[in-house]
Amino acid sequence: MAKKRIYFFGGKDRKADGNAQMKDLLGGKGANLAEMTNIGLPVPPGFTITTEVCKEYYEFGGKWPDGLADEVKEAVKKIEELSGKKFGDPNNPLLVSVRSGAKISMPGMMDTILNLGINDEIVEGLAKLTNNDRFAWDTYRRFIQMFGDVVMKVPHEKFEEIIQKQKDKKGVKQDVELTAEDWKEVVAEYKKLIKEVTGREFPQDPWEQLEMAINAVFESWNNERAKIYRKLHGIPDDLGTAVNVVTMVYGNMGDDCGTGVGFTRNPSTGEKEYYGEYLQNAQGEDVVAGIRTPKPVTELAKDIPQAWEELKKVYEILEKHYRDMQDFEFTIEKGQLWMLQTRTGKRTAQAAVKIAYDMVQEGLITKEEAVERISPEQLKQLLHPRIDPNEKYEAIAKGLPASPGAAVGRVVFSADDAVEWVDRGEKVILVRPETTPEDIAGMNAAEGILTSRGGMTSHAAVVARGMGKCCVAGCEVLKINEEEKYFTVEGKDVKVKEGDWITLNGSTGEVILGALKTIPGGLSKEAQAILSWADEIRKLGVRTNADTPEDARRAREFGAEGIGLCRTEHMFFAEDRIPWVRKMIMAKTKEERMEALEKLEIMQTEDFKGIFKAMEGLPVTVRLLDPPLHEFLPPRDELLRELTEMEVKGQTNTPEYEEKKKIYERVNELYEFNPMMGHRGCRLGITHPEIYDMQVRAIINAAIDLTKQGVKVYPEIMIPLVGHVNELKFLEERVRKIADELISKAGVELHYLVGTMIEIPRAAVTADEIAEVAEFFSFGTNDLTQMTFGFSRDDAQGKFLNYYVETGILPEDPFQTLDQTGVGKLVELAANLGRKTRSSLKLGICGEHGGDPKSIHFCHKIGLNYVSCSPFRVPIARLAAAQAVLAEKKEESKEKVQEAGK
Amino acid sequence: MAKKRIYFFGGKDRKADGNAQMKDLLGGKGANLAEMTNIGLPVPPGFTITTEVCKEYYEFGGKWPDGLADEVKEAVKKIEELSGKKFGDPNNPLLVSVRSGAKISMPGMMDTILNLGINDEIVEGLAKLTNNDRFAWDTYRRFIQMFGDVVMKVPHEKFEEIIQKQKDKKGVKQDVELTAEDWKEVVAEYKKLIKEVTGREFPQDPWEQLEMAINAVFESWNNERAKIYRKLHGIPDDLGTAVNVVTMVYGNMGDDCGTGVGFTRNPSTGEKEYYGEYLQNAQGEDVVAGIRTPKPVTELAKDIPQAWEELKKVYEILEKHYRDMQDFEFTIEKGQLWMLQTRTGKRTAQAAVKIAYDMVQEGLITKEEAVERISPEQLKQLLHPRIDPNEKYEAIAKGLPASPGAAVGRVVFSADDAVEWVDRGEKVILVRPETTPEDIAGMNAAEGILTSRGGMTSHAAVVARGMGKCCVAGCEVLKINEEEKYFTVEGKDVKVKEGDWITLNGSTGEVILGALKTIPGGLSKEAQAILSWADEIRKLGVRTNADTPEDARRAREFGAEGIGLCRTEHMFFAEDRIPWVRKMIMAKTKEERMEALEKLEIMQTEDFKGIFKAMEGLPVTVRLLDPPLHEFLPPRDELLRELTEMEVKGQTNTPEYEEKKKIYERVNELYEFNPMMGHRGCRLGITHPEIYDMQVRAIINAAIDLTKQGVKVYPEIMIPLVGHVNELKFLEERVRKIADELISKAGVELHYLVGTMIEIPRAAVTADEIAEVAEFFSFGTNDLTQMTFGFSRDDAQGKFLNYYVETGILPEDPFQTLDQTGVGKLVELAANLGRKTRSSLKLGICGEHGGDPKSIHFCHKIGLNYVSCSPFRVPIARLAAAQAVLAEKKEESKEKVQEAGK
Repeated sequence: MAKKRIYFFGGKDRKADGNAQMKDLLGGKGANLAEMTNIGLPVPPGFTITTEVCKEYYEFGGKWPDGLADEVKEAVKKIEELSGKKFGDPNNPLLVSVRSGAKISMPGMMDTILNLGINDEIVEGLAKLTNNDRFAWDTYRRFIQMFGDVVMKVPHEKFEEIIQKQKDKKGVKQDVELTAEDWKEVVAEYKKLIKEVTGREFPQDPWEQLEMAINAVFESWNNERAKIYRKLHGIPDDLGTAVNVVTMVYGNMGDDCGTGVGFTRNPSTGEKEYYGEYLQNAQGEDVVAGIRTPKPVTELAKDIPQAWEELKKVYEILEKHYRDMQDFEFTIEKGQLWMLQTRTGKRTAQAAVKIAYDMVQEGLITKEEAVERISPEQLKQLLHPRIDPNEKYEAIAKGLPASPGAAVGRVVFSADDAVEWVDRGEKVILVRPETTPEDIAGMNAAEGILTSRGGMTSHAAVVARGMGKCCVAGCEVLKINEEEKYFTVEGKDVKVKEGDWITLNGSTGEVILGALKTIPGGLSKEAQAILSWADEIRKLGVRTNADTPEDARRAREFGAEGIGLCRTEHMFFAEDRIPWVRKMIMAKTKEERMEALEKLEIMQTEDFKGIFKAMEGLPVTVRLLDPPLHEFLPPRDELLRELTEMEVKGQTNTPEYEEKKKIYERVNELYEFNPMMGHRGCRLGITHPEIYDMQVRAIINAAIDLTKQGVKVYPEIMIPLVGHVNELKFLEERVRKIADELISKAGVELHYLVGTMIEIPRAAVTADEIAEVAEFFSFGTNDLTQMTFGFSRDDAQGKFLNYYVETGILPEDPFQTLDQTGVGKLVELAANLGRKTRSSLKLGICGEHGGDPKSIHFCHKIGLNYVSCSPFRVPIARLAAAQAVLAEKKEESKEKVQEAGK
Repeated sequence: MAKKRIYFFGGKDRKADGNAQMKDLLGGKGANLAEMTNIGLPVPPGFTITTEVCKEYYEFGGKWPDGLADEVKEAVKKIEELSGKKFGDPNNPLLVSVRSGAKISMPGMMDTILNLGINDEIVEGLAKLTNNDRFAWDTYRRFIQMFGDVVMKVPHEKFEEIIQKQKDKKGVKQDVELTAEDWKEVVAEYKKLIKEVTGREFPQDPWEQLEMAINAVFESWNNERAKIYRKLHGIPDDLGTAVNVVTMVYGNMGDDCGTGVGFTRNPSTGEKEYYGEYLQNAQGEDVVAGIRTPKPVTELAKDIPQAWEELKKVYEILEKHYRDMQDFEFTIEKGQLWMLQTRTGKRTAQAAVKIAYDMVQEGLITKEEAVERISPEQLKQLLHPRIDPNEKYEAIAKGLPASPGAAVGRVVFSADDAVEWVDRGEKVILVRPETTPEDIAGMNAAEGILTSRGGMTSHAAVVARGMGKCCVAGCEVLKINEEEKYFTVEGKDVKVKEGDWITLNGSTGEVILGALKTIPGGLSKEAQAILSWADEIRKLGVRTNADTPEDARRAREFGAEGIGLCRTEHMFFAEDRIPWVRKMIMAKTKEERMEALEKLEIMQTEDFKGIFKAMEGLPVTVRLLDPPLHEFLPPRDELLRELTEMEVKGQTNTPEYEEKKKIYERVNELYEFNPMMGHRGCRLGITHPEIYDMQVRAIINAAIDLTKQGVKVYPEIMIPLVGHVNELKFLEERVRKIADELISKAGVELHYLVGTMIEIPRAAVTADEIAEVAEFFSFGTNDLTQMTFGFSRDDAQGKFLNYYVETGILPEDPFQTLDQTGVGKLVELAANLGRKTRSSLKLGICGEHGGDPKSIHFCHKIGLNYVSCSPFRVPIARLAAAQAVLAEKKEESKEKVQEAGK
């Protein structure tokens, strides 16, 4: 038997051939028209030609498959029966719309033709039948215009020109002021235009019109804008579109007519109410054209009461049936309500949360479904202050969206100025070429940070994300003049001076002139409820990356179950520490170095106490010092420039010169061509063991002190950058020796773990050996991605990585979403090798991927124990981890069904 | 049954208990004493206590296992029977030596005691028996001295002092001038000394002496120098030593006595001759002491003719039996020859080659055995000029052995000076902090290069290796004063000025004051023959890394079968190119850039023609441009310094300033934090496709031109730094388009391949995808090692890598020998994944590991098609590749034997 090519729907008290599950075959629109028919809603009779036919059409080089023409004829006959009208019959004409409808909605990308089936003869019949000349001729000209544009490719403006000419001639402004006679003249001009442009007559045969329209819809699947849209949205090119042929109904036949759109709940707030708008005596196009202002849909109660009663029922039926907020289109023809479309409605993040929560309370959906319905992206939007959606603006520049949210303030150009201005009550945005550890106080004071250099992991970006502060980084079009305190924008006539107001959008990277209105972020009680449901579902633990007690507390409020990465170097950068860090590095004698380390130890012990206390009862993974020492010294360029200046000026005999020269020499000694792959992490820990020794003492002493106070502490000491098991062995022995001695001396019960980052490809490949020593692995996927790809992240971004992502050489930025094919393969390999050696091995991830939903799915799939991410990402991770479980369940049940079907 | 602990040997017409195969159990010395017994050579009766006993001794905390004491007594009784003497019997005393003997020779590391079994009573008996008072007392004092030193730990000097006192007393200079009476006095003093120092009497009981001596030998296995030796030579600590107890024979009982060493062939030249030396009327110690000059062994013919006749037979028997050159010790006691030891003799590289070759000609060994007997290290020694082995010297400094060989010349401090001095006929060594592309001419002119900075892949090192020129790099103790043209050495009172003579040893990294004598390198006809036998055996192909026709020709002479890596950037650095390269980089318009590229294309085309011609009939893999563009511009620091100077001096309005500023800005634009992982290789090829396009045209046009002339050309175009298959896809399509168009236009038959380097971990992990596009893989194990370990090679070396290797954190420098556990795992994975996708995939390696024997074994094992290495390494690779096959065969037959035994 041949495949069924045509599916009917519509008419009263009938079942359609299809249903809502058949979107692959019928497209979204067709499937839902069928579904509405099945649940008893009034749908005008019509049929859907399947997406399979579209594919055949392309296979056959733009020809219909054998038999299709007959089947279409049959189908039209069936509509005729149901509607009681006749296609091509001037006395009782059936007009139809021909609409595209793909499986995945591509709004506005493909073509639609309305009012098809009219011609010179039928228009007269229609006028007689409706007793409405103007309606008939307006309908005819609308058809010619749309058909001429969409099917016969006559430029749209040419039609508009004709109407304009007619209006000029009659001295009127609006289309509605044109009479039936005017439209007759316009129709004549339209037909002439088509002949002129295409060399063909406008087709009078309704069957020819129908065939041409169906082909045009097929063709529109592959028009340029549709292809681009699919590429941008990752929609496969081979799905094809269905074609829906539907009996026309008219909302423009009088005051008992109208057309509108409805939402079953408020898509902006999520409130349950009759939301929507409509236009009396109008066709759908008029709503789109925006010439008349539509009224709230509730006004139908007085305008067309019987239709309103019916519509209210539709609201209830649709929600109950679809169990989600619906966005639908309807037309009322002479008091009779007709449903033209329904689909799941788009909504704001707030609305999404409220609707999902409410529907659970109403018993409409399960908690699992509620969790599935919130996208991580929506949750993210909720968390950061953002520009009021009602603000309209144009950005003057765009940088990297380094840390999300919105910030408004007055521009300052130095960290000191930032602190000073804020002290006197101003709000500021700190604008710098790039930031350094010395800018921390200023960054902390500012509302937001804007830099012209540096990537997504530049100092500014990392620190800002840690602070939960809005940051736009690497905005390279900015030309900053620090001395004269202003910046300009390349290619724009803009000059922003100190004190000027600007607004940053850290979620998009936009820089906007002036102070826009913002609204604060936060989790509503509904959001918190949904997250608690997510917690019941998920298997992955969620920890946070936090370096301060404040961060730790905030993350805990967001639901973090421990710290997965506490970076001790951030403590080294603090203003009161950096002089001692430098002393340690510059020390010439062991005594000098030990003195500096002692000072640092006292401070670090306090740091750890604060963090352990904030995370009482939860594990805290502390990573020992990671960056190379030269990061703590002043920049080499700066020193070279200063020294050269002093040399030229003959100031080489000053003590200042001597001092700087010494620092410069040390910086040169420490200099590395590729610091990313250099003398840092455990390599530093091995060659300078006194630094790690100090840190271990600080961690363990802090834990001992708190344990004595009755605070439960679970420190996990993490050794970074291990590539060979011997590195870890050497340090692990040292750590245990120091820790065990301190603990036994203190006589307390204190359990700690020693583990490592897996961030070097070699560590991943030899994870079986490393697990012999490590009690836990934390995948440092930032560095692992850098080394597996051989990308220096900060360098790559602007130089080629963006280009790679834009041109599709890389499907995604691997620093945002874990590259599962490459880096992920190593992560999975390491997890398996590690667990083979030590079944109790704890596995987590602490790279930025720990807060990325797709990457979290992967972490769930390969069976990690937890993910760790920045505080603001914690709720997102909780949600994504739960969604991973649900997606897996679905996958499994699908497989079961397939197996059962075999 | 208890394990056999004691093995006999020696005596006439007897078989020993052991044989030469039992080195594990008997040690080298014991096993060969047994073997010599078995083949009928005269060995004094004795026995070996096994290494197992030594292990038990340590297990039991320094005690003999039960029953050993009785077994030793039994064993001594057996010697007594064979020798007809009696241990401890003053009338016919048996004296013995007690010697260590481990499985692996550790010359001089462990202890030996001679003349054991003598005491106050026996010395008198011995005097009577030999009728030689002086001999008896001399023997006694020798024993006390040795026993006191070795067993009782009395400092050696104390004994010497006593002898000196005696000599002073008698007013004589030499030991031989002392009489029996003198020795008697000395013996009395010795015994007093021992009592004083140890509080114990010197033991008179021969059995006590024996037990103490055996224990001392056991203990010597773990003395400090032995432990250090084992660590240095990678000998396991748990092997233990055997103990050999042997009847003493005396070469110092008159003129029909003597002692000596022999080599069955000349260990220096390899000539087959009676080589060796002996001392008449002397004991072995006297040879070692070097007091008398030994005579050539051939003089025995007139000194002790009957012994000489016997010894000549020994030469023949040993060689025939051991089938290798032997180094043996003998003693003649009253005309009777006794063999005390034999082992495979150490020899020079020259001798090794000649002996192996000759033995094949003589039918003594097979070609396979000859190939096995030459070590790659020996071959390496042959290839480079080297310091005359007769030269004695002390180095003033030691750097990295960056490029092997020796160089002698006068010091100059700039490339220009080097060229100038050489032009006027001088030989120079170029001494620089580090070299840059601008130094190439100077480097080419110099005999050798010495730098104070940079690692094994620094510019100096890489270029020098390419030139086959001696280079010592990264000699950090050198303090170079370029302006005043001298250098000093940290911690030494040395100042070397321009024009001073120095010598470099590039194989060791040594820098030596003055002009040492050197001898040239090269392959003898014997070496070439052995290599041709290796060629018949090996399965791996051997190609070369060559960037110039000269290199290509040289490598071909050395046996290269193609070029595995031709680095096109080295062409860019040439003096006539670099201005055009810079123009290309600085170009503001497309026209400017295209003009520069056209110039470069003409030059590159000529380059490739030269190389293809030199490699006629063989494949040539050309790697497209790899380094980042900023490598071709002047260094950033230098520009910054110059600009700052001009700014301070107010010269900012000069065109020179403008020009410099422009370059500086471009350098800054191109600046990268981690250039190693930056915008280079295919990343540059993708974002700047015009550069690769130019190179492809140059390659293909060169090939077309030569093809038209009838030269056979097989170009293989290699795309570097691929991490994702899409990178390769993009470029491969472009390469093929250009190449195919040129070829079809030219109408010639030309076959080329397109492939990629596998040097990014991600490429290795996704090799199955990459092989869909690549026709060959070349493993770039330098970069792959860098990224797999996360080591920046140049940075790592001095900062922590050397430390890692010294302390054993890493077993070997992974840049010299491929890290099989980590990097090797990725290489093997990639090879397997690649071949799974494309069975015809050609696999090679072009990192420096391609010339490292251990790494070559690995490449053979995992089934690569070829290795590629620098020209001077080609013979080494040929040898190592053959040895890999032979080692594998041995392994297989061992496994077969084991299986059969099951």
